[in-house]
Amino acid sequence: MIGVGIIGLGTVGTGTYRILTEHKSLIKEKTGLGIEVVRVAEIDPRNIKGKQIAGSLITGNALEILNDTRIDIVVELIGGIRPAYDYIVQALRKKKWVVTANKALLAERGDKLFEIAGQNQCEIGFEASVCGGIPVIRAIRDGLIGNRITYMLGILNGTSNYILTKMTDDGVSFQDALRNAQQLGFAEKDPTFDIEGVDAAHKLSILVRLAFSYPIRMADITKGGISNIEPIDIDSAKEFGYRIKLLAVAKDEGGLIEARVEPAMLPLTHPMSNVHGVYNAVYVVGDKVGPNLFYGRGAGSEPTGSAVVSDIIDMAHRIKNKNNFVKLPVYARGKKMKKGENSSVPYYMRFTAQDRPGVLSKISGILAQHKISISAVTQKGRKETGYVPIVMLTHEAVERDLKKAAAAIDRLSFIRRGSVYIRIEEGGL
Amino acid sequence: MIGVGIIGLGTVGTGTYRILTEHKSLIKEKTGLGIEVVRVAEIDPRNIKGKQIAGSLITGNALEILNDTRIDIVVELIGGIRPAYDYIVQALRKKKWVVTANKALLAERGDKLFEIAGQNQCEIGFEASVCGGIPVIRAIRDGLIGNRITYMLGILNGTSNYILTKMTDDGVSFQDALRNAQQLGFAEKDPTFDIEGVDAAHKLSILVRLAFSYPIRMADITKGGISNIEPIDIDSAKEFGYRIKLLAVAKDEGGLIEARVEPAMLPLTHPMSNVHGVYNAVYVVGDKVGPNLFYGRGAGSEPTGSAVVSDIIDMAHRIKNKNNFVKLPVYARGKKMKKGENSSVPYYMRFTAQDRPGVLSKISGILAQHKISISAVTQKGRKETGYVPIVMLTHEAVERDLKKAAAAIDRLSFIRRGSVYIRIEEGGL
Repeated sequence: MIGVGIIGLGTVGTGTYRILTEHKSLIKEKTGLGIEVVRVAEIDPRNIKGKQIAGSLITGNALEILNDTRIDIVVELIGGIRPAYDYIVQALRKKKWVVTANKALLAERGDKLFEIAGQNQCEIGFEASVCGGIPVIRAIRDGLIGNRITYMLGILNGTSNYILTKMTDDGVSFQDALRNAQQLGFAEKDPTFDIEGVDAAHKLSILVRLAFSYPIRMADITKGGISNIEPIDIDSAKEFGYRIKLLAVAKDEGGLIEARVEPAMLPLTHPMSNVHGVYNAVYVVGDKVGPNLFYGRGAGSEPTGSAVVSDIIDMAHRIKNKNNFVKLPVYARGKKMKKGENSSVPYYMRFTAQDRPGVLSKISGILAQHKISISAVTQKGRKETGYVPIVMLTHEAVERDLKKAAAAIDRLSFIRRGSVYIRIEEGGL
Repeated sequence: MIGVGIIGLGTVGTGTYRILTEHKSLIKEKTGLGIEVVRVAEIDPRNIKGKQIAGSLITGNALEILNDTRIDIVVELIGGIRPAYDYIVQALRKKKWVVTANKALLAERGDKLFEIAGQNQCEIGFEASVCGGIPVIRAIRDGLIGNRITYMLGILNGTSNYILTKMTDDGVSFQDALRNAQQLGFAEKDPTFDIEGVDAAHKLSILVRLAFSYPIRMADITKGGISNIEPIDIDSAKEFGYRIKLLAVAKDEGGLIEARVEPAMLPLTHPMSNVHGVYNAVYVVGDKVGPNLFYGRGAGSEPTGSAVVSDIIDMAHRIKNKNNFVKLPVYARGKKMKKGENSSVPYYMRFTAQDRPGVLSKISGILAQHKISISAVTQKGRKETGYVPIVMLTHEAVERDLKKAAAAIDRLSFIRRGSVYIRIEEGGL
């Protein structure tokens, strides 16, 4: 019998507990493993109420799990940096294996935790930390192990993808879509982490470490949010054959790493542009396998619990069979970050200008000065205010140049400040 | 050092050899494993010529691989039932682990092979047998292990998917699309296995065993091919909001198993309907995780080699660490097949009728007698021959009834024989 202790009976903790109990005999049948939840730590009575869980299993003190000799695997599902970090360290020092869904913790302190795991010959399972129930960690770490991975795209945050889908399908504003997401429970009261790309960046840092063997820090990831996307940008994207997504992009070009989470336009023909609503997906290109896409529910109690349980079972096999090897992250030498501003892609730009002669010539002149050439331009219908939106696509442009050009254009007297520019990611097709 | 012997230097054998040699140091870096191809067996000189492989590695005699004590893992890539079966049995009896991409062999003789593997405490890796480079075996066996899997859809054959995509995009006939696929090397001279659903059924049987823990036989799978699909069916599908795919479908409804490979219409909004060309995908629904989709190249030298290498590395970890457990298929008790003809879905039907009064009333009368109700009907423009196509969608109908009704309608004097009916698979949305 393999003993499991769960710390935290929130959304994911509850899903995990439910799967392990409901499917106890199914798991036994499929794997031969007897897995038993022997203790659950939760301090908030609201998280316990109404859940069918024996009172004798529950403790308010996580230390009782860390000290319980019946427990082989500690599942940390409280989130946040502290005290989650301390619990995991203590579990590892007691030679317990650890499963966590805590992407923020892994992104910020993962290296230290994996080091301690190695010292104690234990493993940390983190399938649930990225894309909920989609087994993408396993796919990259084991399934594509024979490949040099060069390129990844991720739709890693269900909240922002829901909002953008709502804006695209119903033509509503960002604020209305956000409110709708909050009403449905898809967005938190304070949605900053989701809509500003922080949550997706946490997840991307985990994928980059795994796929590129590079110890990326959060500060290395260029981040941008979706709150300034307007319906006109979504419509214009569609006209040009694109869809706007909050897109995680990571490239490894001969050891030079690029990683960003930003709104970007994807071709409508790209499989990632069809990932709608709260769904998540990762698109991974390996040098041998070509592109692979993994798609599913990126959050939720039982989908994420499903990922936690897959780690528990994997570990249980090895613990039962007294396996003496653990898989830990390995980092390659000689890789380094590309400066975010050196990135070069085509861009979508939108200016709001007074409707008078010479405007377009002035704008395109400034772009030309910054080595940016235009591939398409449309001027949208006149507005009563006397201002009109001008929408452009550029050829490949270096981000530094583009920012400078946009700032210069914003300083023109007949331009309303706050010009918009969005990356176009052709998606390796 | 883990020694590998490859039997068969065809397409997949060459890809496997190339990955293991080109990425030898990358694999060492990522996994700590030293993996060495110590022997390759190939009898056909045309398969050796022009490949950068030391002559000393090559033998014409597979027994030299089976008897080589340096070899821990035997990779069988010759395909077909014999002698592949004998080689694998001999390898297992010598306590060598086996990797194979041979779906026909696993579908026909898998149970016996896994039994022998178990007797010898060895494992058979078969990630490469389904969907080439997509790690779908791993995803189902390990990633979704905490789920009861209830429903799967597969686009498992790149050749037929290429042909249908070509017919859909370019409006060409089946024959022209097939010829085009043959010219590009996507279809064999004798394409029967691909276009009649046999290859996809082999793969589906492997997925069903894994996902439903049920020892399905090839004869249990209802099979149909794409050769009688006409451009008008593809166009009509589009008008109704569907796309035609050669679709593998498997359901487990409380232990009653259904498995079929047939052309089917999928809603355009379903992610599987966007799997184009030679790409493959599997859509798996677990009771806890919800739907997952795995997408990538389903064939090809290096994509399939990538899957072979993932199995080799997985085994190498365990061999190196003297692991004493192997994962073998387990079958649940009490499950059984649903009779194919009892299956019930909505249908698309196409009749070719003389253009005269009373035809529709007669057809719908016969359908009603067989408890089939119509949800939509369109009559396509008149033809010079005096015959017109009548296209219908039905509500859910039992296959047995539908076949009887179609046969009765075919006997009508004003109907040209060979009425077409295609299943509509709503896809669990």
